[in-house]
Amino acid sequence: MTTIAIPEDSLFGLSNLPYGVFSTPGTAPRVGVRVADHVVDLAAALGDEVFARPSLNAFMAQGHERWRQVRERVTELVSRDVPDTAVHRVSDVTLQLPVEVGDYVDFYASEHHATNVGRLFRPDADPLMPNWKHLPVGYHGRAGTVIVSGTDIVRPRGQRKAPDDAAPAFGPSRRLDIEAELGFVVGADSALGTGVSVDDFAEHVFGAVLLNDWSARDIQAWEYVPLGPFLGKSFATSISPWVVPLLALEGARVRGPVQEPQVLPYLRESSPWGLDIDLCVEWNGQEVARPGYREMYWSPAQMLAHMTVNGASTRCGDLYGSGTVSGAGKDQRGSFLELTWSGAEPVELKGERRTFLEDGDEVVISATAPAADGGRIGFGEVAGRILPAREGDR
Amino acid sequence: MTTIAIPEDSLFGLSNLPYGVFSTPGTAPRVGVRVADHVVDLAAALGDEVFARPSLNAFMAQGHERWRQVRERVTELVSRDVPDTAVHRVSDVTLQLPVEVGDYVDFYASEHHATNVGRLFRPDADPLMPNWKHLPVGYHGRAGTVIVSGTDIVRPRGQRKAPDDAAPAFGPSRRLDIEAELGFVVGADSALGTGVSVDDFAEHVFGAVLLNDWSARDIQAWEYVPLGPFLGKSFATSISPWVVPLLALEGARVRGPVQEPQVLPYLRESSPWGLDIDLCVEWNGQEVARPGYREMYWSPAQMLAHMTVNGASTRCGDLYGSGTVSGAGKDQRGSFLELTWSGAEPVELKGERRTFLEDGDEVVISATAPAADGGRIGFGEVAGRILPAREGDR
Repeated sequence: MTTIAIPEDSLFGLSNLPYGVFSTPGTAPRVGVRVADHVVDLAAALGDEVFARPSLNAFMAQGHERWRQVRERVTELVSRDVPDTAVHRVSDVTLQLPVEVGDYVDFYASEHHATNVGRLFRPDADPLMPNWKHLPVGYHGRAGTVIVSGTDIVRPRGQRKAPDDAAPAFGPSRRLDIEAELGFVVGADSALGTGVSVDDFAEHVFGAVLLNDWSARDIQAWEYVPLGPFLGKSFATSISPWVVPLLALEGARVRGPVQEPQVLPYLRESSPWGLDIDLCVEWNGQEVARPGYREMYWSPAQMLAHMTVNGASTRCGDLYGSGTVSGAGKDQRGSFLELTWSGAEPVELKGERRTFLEDGDEVVISATAPAADGGRIGFGEVAGRILPAREGDR
Repeated sequence: MTTIAIPEDSLFGLSNLPYGVFSTPGTAPRVGVRVADHVVDLAAALGDEVFARPSLNAFMAQGHERWRQVRERVTELVSRDVPDTAVHRVSDVTLQLPVEVGDYVDFYASEHHATNVGRLFRPDADPLMPNWKHLPVGYHGRAGTVIVSGTDIVRPRGQRKAPDDAAPAFGPSRRLDIEAELGFVVGADSALGTGVSVDDFAEHVFGAVLLNDWSARDIQAWEYVPLGPFLGKSFATSISPWVVPLLALEGARVRGPVQEPQVLPYLRESSPWGLDIDLCVEWNGQEVARPGYREMYWSPAQMLAHMTVNGASTRCGDLYGSGTVSGAGKDQRGSFLELTWSGAEPVELKGERRTFLEDGDEVVISATAPAADGGRIGFGEVAGRILPAREGDR
C-alpha cells in the first residue's frame, strides 16, 4: 500500500481531485484522479469497470448524485493507503483527451474581449452588437478537432484578404493567435424539446477545463460574414487533461458583474455562478497576461440555459467554452489580438518585439482558484507548440 | 427464398440501392438496403456483423474500395433470390437515424438563396458578401440535434427583437421556416493537419441524404451577429433515412454554373461534381416548390476541400449540408422566407394565405435524380410536423 504525500501548498490536494484519462506502456487509457504529483487509477482502486474506459463519458453519464458519491469515496481512499498498483507518478503516464466530445460550442462572454474585438474588427461601428447584453452570444465549433494539451498545432492555411487587396490569396496564416478560455463539460443529458434551467447547471455540468481556442485572425476576418467563424478556428482547440469537478469549485463561486439591462427571466440565476479563477498566459516561457475569470459578464449557468432554451438537447460529453477571458487591464487580455492591439503594439519577448505566433512558439495557459477550505486548487495547464504549415497550393 | 419484384419505374431499383438503419419489433436496429418496397437485412443476407450495428458508421469506416465491393455483392444478391428472413416490407419496419453524426457543418452554396437572404436580412447592402464567390461559406451546426425524418419538431422558443422594438421579448418563434437541402455523409476519415483534395471527394464521402435545416428566422435575425446562426437553427435538423451512395449518383453528375472570378487552385475540380437532382417541397400535402440542385454554385467536392484546407480532420459520420437549394424561379425557392418574401407575399395553401409554419403543419421534402442506366433514382423523403412550443418563461 502507498500513502500519497500531499504537500501543504499542493494545487492538487484533497479539495481538488480532478479527473483525467491516462495510459502507461502497460495500461490502456483509463480514468484517473490526480492527487499531488500522482495519478490514482480508479478502476484498480475502486474495482469499478466504469473507470476502465478511454474517456470520462460513461462515468459522467451516471449523473450528479453518483459524481458526489465517487468524490466522497476517492477523498476517503486517498486520505489513507492506496493499493500500490493503483498509483502512478504523473511524470510516468501519458495524459489523453479526457472526454469524448459531443457538440462543442464557444461563447463570447467577456465584455472586455467583445469590446476589444469589436473595436478592432469593426472600427466604424459600436463595438458591442445590440444583442450582446441580452444574451450570451455563442456559436458551434468543431468537436472533432478538440485535442489534448501537448498536441502540436500545424499552422493552418487558408484564404485571407486585407481590405486593400484586390483578391484573396492562399497560404499559411500570418496572424495565428490564442484565446485563453475556460471550458465546461456536460455530464448529464437533457432531452430534445426541453431545456436546462439556469438553476439546474450543477446537475448537468460535470466540471471545467482550460481551453485554448487557437485562432487564425486573417482567415477569420475574411470568412466570418455572415455566418460566423469557421476555418479560422476549426483547425484545433486544445483542452487541459484534468477536468476539475464543479464540486471542487464551490470556494470559487462569486457574483459576476451587474447585468444592466436586466436579463430575461430564463437567464436569471437564484444563486450566482461567477467564478474567481486566475488564468495565466505564458508565451515561450514568459508570462504575458493574467486574465481573471471573475470579470466575465455571462456565467456558465446562463450559457447552458441559453444554449438549450430553444429545446436543443445536450449530450454527455458536450463541451462549451466561455470565450476569451479578458479583463479591463492591458495585462489581462487573453488573446494576442488584444494584447498587441492587432499587431500595432508588439509585446517584448526575450528581447524581440512580437505580435502573432511564429513557428516553434509555445503557449502555456494555467489557472488556479480558491478552494472551499481556504487553500487553492489548480487546473494544470493547456499547452501547444506551433509547427510550420504544410506546403503546396492544394 | 424471396425474389424481390422491382417495378420498371421504381425509384429504388438496382441503380439506387441506398443504405439505412431499420428495426422491427423483433430486430434491433441494423443496416438495410432498400430495394423497391423492401428492405434487405444485410447482416442476415451477407452474414457480416458489421451490418448488425445501429448505424452505418462501422461499415463506412471500411473505406471506398469496400463500399464498391459491397454494392456489387448486394446487386448480385438482389438480382436473384434473397433468404426470406433477410427481407422486410418497408411498411413493416421503423427507420432510424442512419448515421452517428460526428460534426455537422452547413454551407450556403446556392447563389440564388444567398442573394435572396442578403436582400431580406441586409436590404441596405450588397446582397452577396465580398467573400461569397471566393469560398463556400459555411459554419458548424449542432450534431446532437440531427434527427431522422418523421421526428416531430417542437416549436422553438427564444429571444426575438424586431428593429423597432425597444427590447427583446421571449416566446415561441413566430417565423418558423424550413431549408430544403442535400446532406453529404463522410465515410473515410482524414487526419488532423492534412486535408482532403477536391479530387478525393469520392474517396471520402459515402453518400447523400435529404436535409431539412429547420430555421426560426426571428430568433436567427436577433442573435446572428457577429458569430453566426446558433439557436435559430440548433433545435432540430432532419435528414432522410436512406443514404444514397455516391456510387449511385454517377448518372446525375453535371458541370455546375461557371465560377467567375476563377477560384483558387485548391477549389478547382478536375472532374465536376455538380448534381442534377430535382427536389420537391410539399407543405401540408401541397407542392410549393421544386428547387433544382444543378444550379448550386459550389459543389460538394469543393465544400469538403474547403472545410479541410486549414488542416481540420474529418471523421466517419461527419455530415455537411449544402445550404438551401434555391433556383432562379419563384417556384424554385427552398425556404418559406424566400418563397413568401419574408411574409410579404403569402402562399395560397388550400384556400388559406400562409407565410411561416403553424402548429400542426407538416413539410415533406423529396428528390429524384437520373440514374446511370437511363432511369431515375429516389432519395425518399424527409418529413416533419410542428408541435406547439412548451409553455413558461424559463
